[in-house]
Amino acid sequence: MTIKVAINGYGTIGKRVADAVACQPDMEIVGVSKTSMNADAYVAKARGYPLYIADLAKRPDFETAGVPIAGTVVDMIAKADIVVDATPGGVGLKNKPMYEEHGVRAIYQGGEKHATTGFSFNSSVNYDEAKGRQFVRVVSCNTTGLVRVINEVDRAIGVEKVRAVMVRRGGDPGDIKRGPIDAIVLDPVTLPSHHGPDVQSVLPHINITTGAMIVPTTFMHMHTVQMSLKRPATREQVIELFRGHSRIGLINRAAGIKSSAELKEHMQDIGRPRSDMWENGVFEESISVVDGTELWLFQAIHQEADVVVENVDAIRAMASDVPAAESIRMTEQALGFVAVK
Amino acid sequence: MTIKVAINGYGTIGKRVADAVACQPDMEIVGVSKTSMNADAYVAKARGYPLYIADLAKRPDFETAGVPIAGTVVDMIAKADIVVDATPGGVGLKNKPMYEEHGVRAIYQGGEKHATTGFSFNSSVNYDEAKGRQFVRVVSCNTTGLVRVINEVDRAIGVEKVRAVMVRRGGDPGDIKRGPIDAIVLDPVTLPSHHGPDVQSVLPHINITTGAMIVPTTFMHMHTVQMSLKRPATREQVIELFRGHSRIGLINRAAGIKSSAELKEHMQDIGRPRSDMWENGVFEESISVVDGTELWLFQAIHQEADVVVENVDAIRAMASDVPAAESIRMTEQALGFVAVK
Amino acid sequence: MTIKVAINGYGTIGKRVADAVACQPDMEIVGVSKTSMNADAYVAKARGYPLYIADLAKRPDFETAGVPIAGTVVDMIAKADIVVDATPGGVGLKNKPMYEEHGVRAIYQGGEKHATTGFSFNSSVNYDEAKGRQFVRVVSCNTTGLVRVINEVDRAIGVEKVRAVMVRRGGDPGDIKRGPIDAIVLDPVTLPSHHGPDVQSVLPHINITTGAMIVPTTFMHMHTVQMSLKRPATREQVIELFRGHSRIGLINRAAGIKSSAELKEHMQDIGRPRSDMWENGVFEESISVVDGTELWLFQAIHQEADVVVENVDAIRAMASDVPAAESIRMTEQALGFVAVK
Amino acid sequence: MTIKVAINGYGTIGKRVADAVACQPDMEIVGVSKTSMNADAYVAKARGYPLYIADLAKRPDFETAGVPIAGTVVDMIAKADIVVDATPGGVGLKNKPMYEEHGVRAIYQGGEKHATTGFSFNSSVNYDEAKGRQFVRVVSCNTTGLVRVINEVDRAIGVEKVRAVMVRRGGDPGDIKRGPIDAIVLDPVTLPSHHGPDVQSVLPHINITTGAMIVPTTFMHMHTVQMSLKRPATREQVIELFRGHSRIGLINRAAGIKSSAELKEHMQDIGRPRSDMWENGVFEESISVVDGTELWLFQAIHQEADVVVENVDAIRAMASDVPAAESIRMTEQALGFVAVK
Repeated sequence: MTIKVAINGYGTIGKRVADAVACQPDMEIVGVSKTSMNADAYVAKARGYPLYIADLAKRPDFETAGVPIAGTVVDMIAKADIVVDATPGGVGLKNKPMYEEHGVRAIYQGGEKHATTGFSFNSSVNYDEAKGRQFVRVVSCNTTGLVRVINEVDRAIGVEKVRAVMVRRGGDPGDIKRGPIDAIVLDPVTLPSHHGPDVQSVLPHINITTGAMIVPTTFMHMHTVQMSLKRPATREQVIELFRGHSRIGLINRAAGIKSSAELKEHMQDIGRPRSDMWENGVFEESISVVDGTELWLFQAIHQEADVVVENVDAIRAMASDVPAAESIRMTEQALGFVAVK
Repeated sequence: MTIKVAINGYGTIGKRVADAVACQPDMEIVGVSKTSMNADAYVAKARGYPLYIADLAKRPDFETAGVPIAGTVVDMIAKADIVVDATPGGVGLKNKPMYEEHGVRAIYQGGEKHATTGFSFNSSVNYDEAKGRQFVRVVSCNTTGLVRVINEVDRAIGVEKVRAVMVRRGGDPGDIKRGPIDAIVLDPVTLPSHHGPDVQSVLPHINITTGAMIVPTTFMHMHTVQMSLKRPATREQVIELFRGHSRIGLINRAAGIKSSAELKEHMQDIGRPRSDMWENGVFEESISVVDGTELWLFQAIHQEADVVVENVDAIRAMASDVPAAESIRMTEQALGFVAVK
Repeated sequence: MTIKVAINGYGTIGKRVADAVACQPDMEIVGVSKTSMNADAYVAKARGYPLYIADLAKRPDFETAGVPIAGTVVDMIAKADIVVDATPGGVGLKNKPMYEEHGVRAIYQGGEKHATTGFSFNSSVNYDEAKGRQFVRVVSCNTTGLVRVINEVDRAIGVEKVRAVMVRRGGDPGDIKRGPIDAIVLDPVTLPSHHGPDVQSVLPHINITTGAMIVPTTFMHMHTVQMSLKRPATREQVIELFRGHSRIGLINRAAGIKSSAELKEHMQDIGRPRSDMWENGVFEESISVVDGTELWLFQAIHQEADVVVENVDAIRAMASDVPAAESIRMTEQALGFVAVK
Repeated sequence: MTIKVAINGYGTIGKRVADAVACQPDMEIVGVSKTSMNADAYVAKARGYPLYIADLAKRPDFETAGVPIAGTVVDMIAKADIVVDATPGGVGLKNKPMYEEHGVRAIYQGGEKHATTGFSFNSSVNYDEAKGRQFVRVVSCNTTGLVRVINEVDRAIGVEKVRAVMVRRGGDPGDIKRGPIDAIVLDPVTLPSHHGPDVQSVLPHINITTGAMIVPTTFMHMHTVQMSLKRPATREQVIELFRGHSRIGLINRAAGIKSSAELKEHMQDIGRPRSDMWENGVFEESISVVDGTELWLFQAIHQEADVVVENVDAIRAMASDVPAAESIRMTEQALGFVAVK
């Protein structure tokens, strides 16, 4: 029996999670929702996803465009075992009473606060703790990317302190309203940024200070991560460690990739759907140990993609008996995950 | 018996043509060539394309990275019925004696001058004239895009004069060296630009004046095309006309797409390889007839993609007996061409 | 006796008009207004402009930052002979009753509709008609730039039809919210755009069709202008014509400038305040006559600056007896207008 | 008697140093040099700087454009007490024999290696050591900006370790060739970057690790600087410290500036020539002390400007008896340095 999944919010994240869920052997999409007609509705139709809308008054907009509407969001919820709420930040909180009323499980995204669910998820850290919960939050793309490398180094070597600077893309590739056009924006202008505490929502014992800015690019955030280690380590040890983690992709020197743009191009070339990079893109050449115990690295985090696989695992963690390692393996196999070079 | 195709220059255009050729029922890739090791070599290997290099001194760079080298470019040429020369502009001319020496047919791209081949190709216009030629030039992305719409309107209605303004992307998505960052660059600063005469290399009887500029974007050129018609027409007639041409994609109002970025996003979403748009992206809402005989429209031209299908047809035009309409159909069927909404 | 001018809205346009007015021998600034505290308030204070605010509840924000507040916007209006309304588009209409109540003249910007004033102004076209009016609208930067060249050619040679494509900057240099980041946006996606009718608000007899798009740059719009002439002309004639108009700047070949960015750099280098280019930047090399009667040219229009001098002239046209030619001369002399090379 | 200064290379840095030198009471410009005709030549002429060229064969290009040529670069050198070499990186080294032959002092920019001069200069650190030297190197814009804040904190509080991440602009505002357009480029992809050792060329005892990337902006680099302090300090102490340094500009909260673009806009508004910010732009709100001894801050460094004032001081340090504090005061007074809010 498959897990019936509804996607509330068929946008940047929602459409990706829908496709990732649809190819899992133990899951099926019972519906996706949209608020207004646009090109994404044609995509949902082509994929065979039943389309639901919040406001039936908009039904004619869809139907005159040749896209049938299956019902309202409430109708969709009623058919689901679990909802992936991929609505814009803040909307998810407003949806909570609806999920409670229907007794349906829901997964929130990083745009919602930790307090909305009381539990923040990463498949490598706390998969087992999601079991039995009605509400789980998959942390944001940046937090997911930080958690993966920090947890891995912390478990194997021990992390005394993390300092990270996140250079974030201004808008998603299809977003034509957001800027900046020619500016580096401090966001926030205060230090430290909120990213450190968000990492602590998953890894409470980690001492971490972060800063963040926004630049005029559309694809991938770039992190400079520095970790003061509890004991000396070599870069080779760290590389070996990362090589063993399926969601940390090591970009090797021979590939000649040293930018977000070239990395996206490579994702396109290897046939990834929507050029998606589900793994952290860690630049192998950048991994460096300074003064014996100070690890430095650059990593690229695909803002639209790294949380997609975490959502799939969160579904299993909440609504099945599949153990963590097996879920991660299943998720990746279904997606045809092939290691980045 | 399949047509044996070599791709000389496995870059932006070459890698796309290679994949498009590889899926045609009557063609096969006998090799692709590169000058230095980078991520594209891994892609060629993964695709199973034998990889040749110009300079064997660079063989160790590839082989230590795990990419076997099949031989030199000359070795590759010797195995081919036809070469698609996708080397950077100007290099193709230098390769001509090599092709002549080996008596192999070659297809050049728009970066080479018309004089290099004496014949400039577009599948909708002069497919039959390519037959028997050793050298054929597929015109540039911009010229291909202009030729498609002008020829269609000219044949059905008659075109007195064309005026077009091309707003071009500054660099390809994976190109991190080229600018501008924050400028509109007149390129050339003189008017008219060379694009008009290039259209005339395929459609010599068309009176056309063009201007061109470059802006800080990476995906798709945007054309404003104005055609003074020989007789009155309505926008509905023009829409009907374009709907009948498989390489003119009409973007309808309900899709809500009004930019190059949203169009790229849609190409990703419908699963096009590398987000490629092989057709002209004509914005249906923009099509307008002013003063009875003055047609205006906006179209987006994917600089990396629209010539790919023309190269495949040029191969058949030169090296088979397949007629034009059948070649166009075969090319598109093999690629799984599905109409843009 | 000087004309007392108030600037309602001390932003991108307002701060420029304030400085231009302040240096005129026959005008003085009685006040400028802002809605909330930011760096511009420090600038107003340093310039010695009394600062007024709409909402006195915000007074502490300014005063704790060391910026004194002179009163409310209504207080400011009461001291003025004429108000330059440089508030955001649409707000000006709401301010009209306030100006009517105080019987004060007001100049609106191009963000307001023609209907708000019933009269749209350009100093080269209809200066004399502004006399005695309570409300005048200075047309937008793009319309001002089009009107200058069209009117000049029309008066000397005769214009049958104008076709113009405007490539517009996405946001002003200091605006960090607006995009796009990597897109060419059709704005509007329909053709023709509203710019043609706006030109007709000043030059009603001109037949003009326009299209417009937005690109990720911050400085200057770039126009491709084509004019079908009523009788043959040479490019030399047109160049001579433009050379005689003080607000059409000809950028000569030796300067090597072929982009908006280089033009801005040159404005900085010659010491223009805020790098402002008050003139049309017509690229001399681009001026071309095709087929005897078809004039083509590229011009750069500084979105923040070209209307500034028109506002100053509009003040004189409405509130003095100075004739047009003398006003234009005075405006430019006070600003230290030096011809662009 | 004034110090006679020649500017070899009248480009981005050279033209700024020329203007800064020209307004000093104890200096004069004896000439500036260019390699080919463009708009900058008109600027030099308008400023009254004698113009020299490397290759007299190009004299007609200038003279037909109305710009007289005073002679060759060697002629210029012969008239100078000191040369500011602002040629592109690497060219300066080739010029060294020429300076040696003429026994003229020369100041190099940060594009040259430390080894070219054996002495790297910052006015706050080692002004007195420049005396008597023939060759001095003013360190790069980024290094200058880092040195100012590190040295100030180190002298007053003590710095154990510095970790800095530099997000650099891709090209200068007038540079239309350089990218990237839509990418974050790791430059270099290895960690640490060369910026740390370059800081040590001025402050050899500082332990510093740095990383650097390039983004698609044109104005100002943005630094995230973390300093582990030798003893506890408060943010108020640090703010007080910076307030006392005339080349560290504190951007206060009330100005509402949180990006490079808004900072540039403010420099324009306060009338700085070429929008230049000669000081470090330290965001007061960002200054933070974490865990008692870990100082964090954001600072913006104007790549075209912060070294300009250092060049002026280096001239005095090498060719006069004026002491450091007096030179700094003279430089700033002549430029009309007014504190940033």
